[in-house]
Amino acid sequence: MPDIRYLLPASEPKFKDSGITKAGELLKAWNGSPATGIGLIGAPLSKTSISHSGAAMAPEAIRKMLHSFTTYSVEKDKDLKSMAITDFGDITPHVTDLKETQNRFVKVIQEVLERNPDIIPVILGGDHSISASSIRAFKKVKGPVGIIQFDAHHDLRNLEDGGPSNGTPFRQLIEGNDIKGEHLIQIGIRDFSNGRMYTNYAKENGIKIYSMNDVNRLGARRILEESVRTLKSKVSSIYVSVDMDVLDQAFAPGCPAIGPGGMNSEDLIQGVQYLSTCPDVKGMDIVEVDPTLDFRDMTSRLAAYLILQFLLNRP
Amino acid sequence: MPDIRYLLPASEPKFKDSGITKAGELLKAWNGSPATGIGLIGAPLSKTSISHSGAAMAPEAIRKMLHSFTTYSVEKDKDLKSMAITDFGDITPHVTDLKETQNRFVKVIQEVLERNPDIIPVILGGDHSISASSIRAFKKVKGPVGIIQFDAHHDLRNLEDGGPSNGTPFRQLIEGNDIKGEHLIQIGIRDFSNGRMYTNYAKENGIKIYSMNDVNRLGARRILEESVRTLKSKVSSIYVSVDMDVLDQAFAPGCPAIGPGGMNSEDLIQGVQYLSTCPDVKGMDIVEVDPTLDFRDMTSRLAAYLILQFLLNRP
Amino acid sequence: MPDIRYLLPASEPKFKDSGITKAGELLKAWNGSPATGIGLIGAPLSKTSISHSGAAMAPEAIRKMLHSFTTYSVEKDKDLKSMAITDFGDITPHVTDLKETQNRFVKVIQEVLERNPDIIPVILGGDHSISASSIRAFKKVKGPVGIIQFDAHHDLRNLEDGGPSNGTPFRQLIEGNDIKGEHLIQIGIRDFSNGRMYTNYAKENGIKIYSMNDVNRLGARRILEESVRTLKSKVSSIYVSVDMDVLDQAFAPGCPAIGPGGMNSEDLIQGVQYLSTCPDVKGMDIVEVDPTLDFRDMTSRLAAYLILQFLLNRP
Amino acid sequence: MPDIRYLLPASEPKFKDSGITKAGELLKAWNGSPATGIGLIGAPLSKTSISHSGAAMAPEAIRKMLHSFTTYSVEKDKDLKSMAITDFGDITPHVTDLKETQNRFVKVIQEVLERNPDIIPVILGGDHSISASSIRAFKKVKGPVGIIQFDAHHDLRNLEDGGPSNGTPFRQLIEGNDIKGEHLIQIGIRDFSNGRMYTNYAKENGIKIYSMNDVNRLGARRILEESVRTLKSKVSSIYVSVDMDVLDQAFAPGCPAIGPGGMNSEDLIQGVQYLSTCPDVKGMDIVEVDPTLDFRDMTSRLAAYLILQFLLNRP
Amino acid sequence: MPDIRYLLPASEPKFKDSGITKAGELLKAWNGSPATGIGLIGAPLSKTSISHSGAAMAPEAIRKMLHSFTTYSVEKDKDLKSMAITDFGDITPHVTDLKETQNRFVKVIQEVLERNPDIIPVILGGDHSISASSIRAFKKVKGPVGIIQFDAHHDLRNLEDGGPSNGTPFRQLIEGNDIKGEHLIQIGIRDFSNGRMYTNYAKENGIKIYSMNDVNRLGARRILEESVRTLKSKVSSIYVSVDMDVLDQAFAPGCPAIGPGGMNSEDLIQGVQYLSTCPDVKGMDIVEVDPTLDFRDMTSRLAAYLILQFLLNRP
Amino acid sequence: MPDIRYLLPASEPKFKDSGITKAGELLKAWNGSPATGIGLIGAPLSKTSISHSGAAMAPEAIRKMLHSFTTYSVEKDKDLKSMAITDFGDITPHVTDLKETQNRFVKVIQEVLERNPDIIPVILGGDHSISASSIRAFKKVKGPVGIIQFDAHHDLRNLEDGGPSNGTPFRQLIEGNDIKGEHLIQIGIRDFSNGRMYTNYAKENGIKIYSMNDVNRLGARRILEESVRTLKSKVSSIYVSVDMDVLDQAFAPGCPAIGPGGMNSEDLIQGVQYLSTCPDVKGMDIVEVDPTLDFRDMTSRLAAYLILQFLLNRP
Ligand SMILES: [Ca+2]
Ligand SMILES: [Ca+2]
Ligand SMILES: [Ca+2]
Ligand SMILES: [Ca+2]
Ligand SMILES: [Ca+2]
Ligand SMILES: [Ca+2]
Ligand SMILES: [Ca+2]
Ligand SMILES: [Ca+2]
Ligand SMILES: [Ca+2]
Ligand SMILES: [Ca+2]
Ligand SMILES: [Ca+2]
Ligand SMILES: [Ca+2]
Repeated sequence: MPDIRYLLPASEPKFKDSGITKAGELLKAWNGSPATGIGLIGAPLSKTSISHSGAAMAPEAIRKMLHSFTTYSVEKDKDLKSMAITDFGDITPHVTDLKETQNRFVKVIQEVLERNPDIIPVILGGDHSISASSIRAFKKVKGPVGIIQFDAHHDLRNLEDGGPSNGTPFRQLIEGNDIKGEHLIQIGIRDFSNGRMYTNYAKENGIKIYSMNDVNRLGARRILEESVRTLKSKVSSIYVSVDMDVLDQAFAPGCPAIGPGGMNSEDLIQGVQYLSTCPDVKGMDIVEVDPTLDFRDMTSRLAAYLILQFLLNRP
Repeated sequence: MPDIRYLLPASEPKFKDSGITKAGELLKAWNGSPATGIGLIGAPLSKTSISHSGAAMAPEAIRKMLHSFTTYSVEKDKDLKSMAITDFGDITPHVTDLKETQNRFVKVIQEVLERNPDIIPVILGGDHSISASSIRAFKKVKGPVGIIQFDAHHDLRNLEDGGPSNGTPFRQLIEGNDIKGEHLIQIGIRDFSNGRMYTNYAKENGIKIYSMNDVNRLGARRILEESVRTLKSKVSSIYVSVDMDVLDQAFAPGCPAIGPGGMNSEDLIQGVQYLSTCPDVKGMDIVEVDPTLDFRDMTSRLAAYLILQFLLNRP
Repeated sequence: MPDIRYLLPASEPKFKDSGITKAGELLKAWNGSPATGIGLIGAPLSKTSISHSGAAMAPEAIRKMLHSFTTYSVEKDKDLKSMAITDFGDITPHVTDLKETQNRFVKVIQEVLERNPDIIPVILGGDHSISASSIRAFKKVKGPVGIIQFDAHHDLRNLEDGGPSNGTPFRQLIEGNDIKGEHLIQIGIRDFSNGRMYTNYAKENGIKIYSMNDVNRLGARRILEESVRTLKSKVSSIYVSVDMDVLDQAFAPGCPAIGPGGMNSEDLIQGVQYLSTCPDVKGMDIVEVDPTLDFRDMTSRLAAYLILQFLLNRP
Repeated sequence: MPDIRYLLPASEPKFKDSGITKAGELLKAWNGSPATGIGLIGAPLSKTSISHSGAAMAPEAIRKMLHSFTTYSVEKDKDLKSMAITDFGDITPHVTDLKETQNRFVKVIQEVLERNPDIIPVILGGDHSISASSIRAFKKVKGPVGIIQFDAHHDLRNLEDGGPSNGTPFRQLIEGNDIKGEHLIQIGIRDFSNGRMYTNYAKENGIKIYSMNDVNRLGARRILEESVRTLKSKVSSIYVSVDMDVLDQAFAPGCPAIGPGGMNSEDLIQGVQYLSTCPDVKGMDIVEVDPTLDFRDMTSRLAAYLILQFLLNRP
Repeated sequence: MPDIRYLLPASEPKFKDSGITKAGELLKAWNGSPATGIGLIGAPLSKTSISHSGAAMAPEAIRKMLHSFTTYSVEKDKDLKSMAITDFGDITPHVTDLKETQNRFVKVIQEVLERNPDIIPVILGGDHSISASSIRAFKKVKGPVGIIQFDAHHDLRNLEDGGPSNGTPFRQLIEGNDIKGEHLIQIGIRDFSNGRMYTNYAKENGIKIYSMNDVNRLGARRILEESVRTLKSKVSSIYVSVDMDVLDQAFAPGCPAIGPGGMNSEDLIQGVQYLSTCPDVKGMDIVEVDPTLDFRDMTSRLAAYLILQFLLNRP
Repeated sequence: MPDIRYLLPASEPKFKDSGITKAGELLKAWNGSPATGIGLIGAPLSKTSISHSGAAMAPEAIRKMLHSFTTYSVEKDKDLKSMAITDFGDITPHVTDLKETQNRFVKVIQEVLERNPDIIPVILGGDHSISASSIRAFKKVKGPVGIIQFDAHHDLRNLEDGGPSNGTPFRQLIEGNDIKGEHLIQIGIRDFSNGRMYTNYAKENGIKIYSMNDVNRLGARRILEESVRTLKSKVSSIYVSVDMDVLDQAFAPGCPAIGPGGMNSEDLIQGVQYLSTCPDVKGMDIVEVDPTLDFRDMTSRLAAYLILQFLLNRP
């Protein structure tokens, strides 16, 4: 841009405070050489959802919300501004061929991971179906992987009734031998949000379930310590899948499947803070945020905040 | 419907998962023979409200929200799908004669209870005025009844100023000798939401008041244990009246009289779970949900969830 | 339902005026024997849309809006209440396989038409992709068909870039030899809403285009008279495809692709009134209504009103 | 208020331009002595509506919208700022006894008219039921009255099914001998918005009906000239009842019963301009504006604008 | 961006049709060498508004809406895709010093015009106050300028009461000798939207006023022909200032000062089409669009469409 | 108002219960003689905000919300109805000169305090910039003052980049020697909401910071006890500045800068209850409530509730 004072490209912020760096500025488009640290990949797909969902708009909304935060943690007295979040951009979905889209997700994420072996990927859904693609790619590159899933739902539905949807990712992964049931830990499973057949499937496959009663009784922190301890003895890396509907509807009003009786946001924040200190945690996704249903981007804001907390405490 | 594959009546869900039963499917229209278990009766009246209210739309909204839950409780490992909720439908209000509507409510509920002596009625308001009709009918059929009322407000206003409104149901019941003051327990009464004259009326009539400070100090569970113990020694059955505005505005954004300083939803859920285990609890109503003011049906969702928890734990 | 006075099934209207019949009551579920008159078929698919769309919810919304109209036309002094609209219900889409859904649409509509040779089908989208399926089925059963398409857009996009979407239905039909270009008439094509490549495609294929300037200059009525005259000499039946985005955004705020410079609703109403008097018009669809974006269901209301006007004037 | 510069009562506007007078400032509370010119009376009742309605909030909203206009007509080069609109305030409704409310309306309006014989009352509903009370009072004080009713609906429903509601005012007036059928002219009656029984009732009672086709064909102005000519030969004064739902939904999005196929706002404005020049027009009401459903108070704004146009052109 | 197939920068569109160019792609950031054709400059200021306004967000919203249109005009069979709209970006406002912001606007626009003598600037407000800055700069560079102002309001308020606000731009220009009153033509001035003092000021200063009655009687086209003819004999260039509130509220729901009785959008579109054919028209601004109040960006969409029509017909 | 029964001024409530006094009725316009107790002063300025803000509308919204509460505290069994809240009205802002507005705030508040030496002022913002004016006036009249600031943000930004905005009030006060850094206590400072430069500035200036971790660990009550103890030894009076964005977004959805990880409303309520018992607390402001962004006035409701709790417990 040629320099006329006070004339700035339309995309630039209208006000710049010399003492503040916006977290959105941490985003640096990937330049093709192997990156380190956290890397964002958008997986904008929600046509795979059982109910109407605009979760495909979440990567855009969450990135935008990163601009509403600064880079400085007063709690840790740590400024992230010298760090970068590598932004790999979004994987383009096919308009009408959803399986093709899912295949693209696997291939692209695999290639990103191969070319950036030290990156900690944070995949932004999209609905929860994208975790099947993402974890498949993750496992191909990284080997056996343990999963910590925050969710009100098992997502272990049968594949016959509707194909690979946002209700089936972990079923797909188990049946595809991408993960073992015993390497999957589900936290926040809720009453009247699942079918017994699928809870039984979980049990039969050795999946560890922490229900909301467990969360309320033990606290997310203790559950996560236990979970990480268990998984790290079995697998070489841990992948955290955060379905935002694990939260109570008061704290995540923008999820497609909101409901009462869920976690509060403080618990989830502290959970992510703990996980970010664990060297074995090597990847994360955040799914099921629908910006078209949200109130003032609250749910996207929280997602962006989780990314920053995840970045802040990494060893 | 004649069978053309994939062609279904418009009212049917567009997707059916063979491993999931929706709680809405538990609703079975009453067939005229004596029913058992829980029975829903809609009392769609809110023209009786002091302020503008669309609570008359709540029965429709709450029934619809039952379809957003499944029948399975992971906490209890219990599937309700073999149970039924008898749906008695809605009592039709008169367009302009509100007392006539209230009389219809008394008569219809009375007849439903007489013809279904074993039913546990769950009356869906409407505004809180419907409790006067409902409890009057309840008492006619069941005899002396104790009331546990969750509410930010006493609802003991004088009848001279505005007639039998949503501010007066418990005054009407006491003055009509339908209940005794000492058989009424009010939980969640809140600062700056009542008039001293009515708190005094409550005290003079022996009504037991647990304010929000009491709830915060003792917990809903302990208060309810105490309440049930007290009431069961005095009356033969207990009726629970849940005014959703007992909740803080963050958890029940769709009540006409929202405000800060109220209960959180987890407490109320656990309260209803406890009450559902008490054999003396023989009826319930849920009132003051206005779907036209709600955000994403959160308040109706919570109401539906309370019905399921009430059903789940019944002895 | 057993008779307790004033107790009605939840789905019944709460007030019934003895002098009014709601148009929604005209809907009669198909009983399997050959029906006559107008028949509604819901095609709830919008995952095929290029942009995020909730048009799949339109069949439900439009049917509901039929309940906000009565059966009586004061202009014609004609009461439709002795007529019926056969409701064939909705065709169930597959959750993740969109081509499978489109195949189901073809097969089901074909079977409906075969078993109901005298029905005038009104297909409720869904996005405009459903017209490809619907017209394909129509042509299979009825033979060569001429199309009058109200639309701001050609919908002649190439199939390579995104597959069979809501941008491609008429391209699909021409390339699949389901219709001839010269049998397609497009009304309401608008500036800055199309690509030249596709206007050229239209011209090369003999498609007749009436742009918005033409509509403003000639009036919809005169264009339609001309169009029907032209088509009836060439084909045995005419199918009308109404993409509601042909209207200006002020009159159809609930279409996914709203914009200025379109038709006003009165013109479209009069157009449909004229078409309904033409015996050669044998089918219609109404597409691109997204109830999740609408204001007070205005666009669904208008769609329902068009159905009634289409029914009213049929010879 | 004591004078501290720049400190103003909370209710005062925050900015005052010395060259602008807001139309809201024309409102002067009635001081008890006989007033002349236009007098506003609020009739905040909509519990009488067949469907859920917040029209009771319209008097407040319309008064507020008067503050968004100035007092100056550039078309007539006339400034109303030396005139006053006498504000009689609102008639308080009973909370639960709707007939009592209607009786209060009759008595209060009657007394206002008796004590202010030269006032031109403008009654602000509320729903259309208030016209029955208002016209009854009007006739008691002024003698035989002719009515020009703008409405999509006859409002001639039977009184048995729901009592005196917003569907019945003109039936009540005819059956109560308050007006004769031949003195009632209905403009804007619309397809699929009425029952044949009531159109027949209108015809049998000599009510003159101008349907929307008539309005589109003849124009509101010519219809009104004809109507005033007819009525002035038969009655001593004319009362205009404006149900805002006579307008198309695009122009009056805040009416409870919106729909397509109605008048545009320019026609209604010109109609009111004409009526305001007729000395025989002695009263008006504006009804069926529901501010809780409106978009940016558009419908209340238009109502306020009609009041000003009605005031502007009075002889 | 390194090439991984299907991985695209987050800012890129998720779907690209090879036959469609989006109008937003015409925007090319200025590279510093003299540009020709149309040049966009954002003037994001609305703190100067008398009422609360978010018009400062309009440049972003209008640019975004350019992406919802294509480059092809079917009416003219002309594709703009080989043309460019030079995007000069936005002028950064000061957070708290509004006069400083206005000075920046003058200086930057002046410099842009000096360095790009052949550009046709299109300034995107912001509120109408920005026209004072813009026209001042325009006149400094281009010499005497005639103004065609579309507006419901004169914007000739006194400067004493509130300083240079959105109510004063043309007063400022006249009093600052930037323009002569006789070189200002105001189109669409509306009843009850102005003060007589300011209409008198207009008349005394030789400003030509076309009220809404004039617009309805003569048509925008004829008024504009007359206006251009008049102005071109007096000044060397014409600047068009489009306050979107000249439109009726049904067509521009997102203006801060909406109201009934205004122009419809088709008239304004045709007016801009005509103006774009006049070689003397050398600049334009579009102001008073508040995206925070709009419905589905309708008003920004229309603003973007006007820009394209302005570009399309340029000689 | 002359007495016609049931006819009331438009501004009066439509229903009056003889046993209820609304808290809004406590507001008494200042009569010029020295007042005691709490005094409200509106400071409607938010053009000074860094981001778009409608906080200038908060004084009106909060006053209105006082009408949704009663005067009676059931917890304290204390009725405020014999008390008064002196309403000093609002200070009128200049339309375009924001510094002039800030100067008016200082002068008016100073004069109010001088003429009402015993008043406890509660200033209603506006954005947080108003605290600089308010505290400056406070200090001029009352001498050295200690500040307890609830806020997610330091508000210690530099003044060069944007002038005296809502990001700078406490920087202004320190640099202007209105307060000392060691007399400022900030509670609720949050991660990713501040710049390190400003946290360092706070530390260097002796400002005491309690971050959200501190609040979660110690509780608001204990922090406040400590804070009051510290301050009262150093200054003669304490001023409490409540930026509502100290709350989590779930509890204060109407603040411009919402986010996760904040306080819950119960903690803040209890904090204010405690502060109201401290005789040294001599003034308060409530800022950063934007009614245009809120949901059902939740944030204004909470602000009104805090005022009542602050009034309730005063010694
Ligand atoms: Ca999930
Ligand atoms: Ca989930
Ligand atoms: Ca209650
Ligand atoms: Ca209550
Ligand atoms: Ca189309
Ligand atoms: Ca289209
Ligand atoms: Ca009517
Ligand atoms: Ca009507
Ligand atoms: Ca203007
Ligand atoms: Ca204007
Ligand atoms: Ca602050
Ligand atoms: Ca803050």
